[in-house]
Amino acid sequence: MDALLAEFERTVLAEIPLTRAMQLRAGAYETNELVLAAPLAPNVNDKGCAFGGSLASLLTLAGWGLIVLHLRRRGLECDVYVQDSQMRYLAPIWQDFTAHAAPAAGETWEAFDQALDARGKARLRVHCRVPLPEGGDACTFEARFVALTKR
Amino acid sequence: MDALLAEFERTVLAEIPLTRAMQLRAGAYETNELVLAAPLAPNVNDKGCAFGGSLASLLTLAGWGLIVLHLRRRGLECDVYVQDSQMRYLAPIWQDFTAHAAPAAGETWEAFDQALDARGKARLRVHCRVPLPEGGDACTFEARFVALTKR
Repeated sequence: MDALLAEFERTVLAEIPLTRAMQLRAGAYETNELVLAAPLAPNVNDKGCAFGGSLASLLTLAGWGLIVLHLRRRGLECDVYVQDSQMRYLAPIWQDFTAHAAPAAGETWEAFDQALDARGKARLRVHCRVPLPEGGDACTFEARFVALTKR
Repeated sequence: MDALLAEFERTVLAEIPLTRAMQLRAGAYETNELVLAAPLAPNVNDKGCAFGGSLASLLTLAGWGLIVLHLRRRGLECDVYVQDSQMRYLAPIWQDFTAHAAPAAGETWEAFDQALDARGKARLRVHCRVPLPEGGDACTFEARFVALTKR
């Protein structure tokens, strides 16, 4: 898993220039959770807390990465796209931050894998959050992704 | 309006480092529309089209800027925060792009100004889009912002 995560970080930084500007780092990965991290300094806004665009970017990448990593573990070549997202900003965050992505309630990898194997296409809703150091969340995010088997 | 827009671009680029990485430019401003622009190259994803995080960032900034510019024209000192957003990705965009922000259907500056003057706090829902060169939209975005008078 660690080699997979390190390779994921390398390819994201190589292929998506904005992630280099954000100084994105891969934090941790298990089957049902991907954690990405970013320092505050390059992601600050005019008020001195984390910029909403940086938060949205890290959350979107965490959700996308959770699916990409699942597919790489299965050895599948797919394109993964975000279809829609809802984001709630609950509290400002004044320090380095992490985005945690997990399958949304009611979603399973079994159903996802079955749909992909049967039709070459599968959707997954992902729930993500940026936790606050004092407890609770700075923001929550739910998004729907689609994976398409490459022809 | 042009001087106001140029000053907005300068302060955003100075205060939000990610906007420099995105090479954000202010496009046009009227009472009911703000247009921000970004080139594809620094905002590309692994597929060669615009990165979802860059799109979300530009859309959030366009909605936020629409309210910030309205308040600056009124000579008011406020903090403006995004509270929540919904985003739909409809089609990939393979070239430089613009985000267009306008008050959402049913929203008026009159009601916003009255709430702000009466209570020091006002909300506005903003509708934003990234148009495709061939017609239609690459993505749509609706978000709720709150403005608070500075004490």
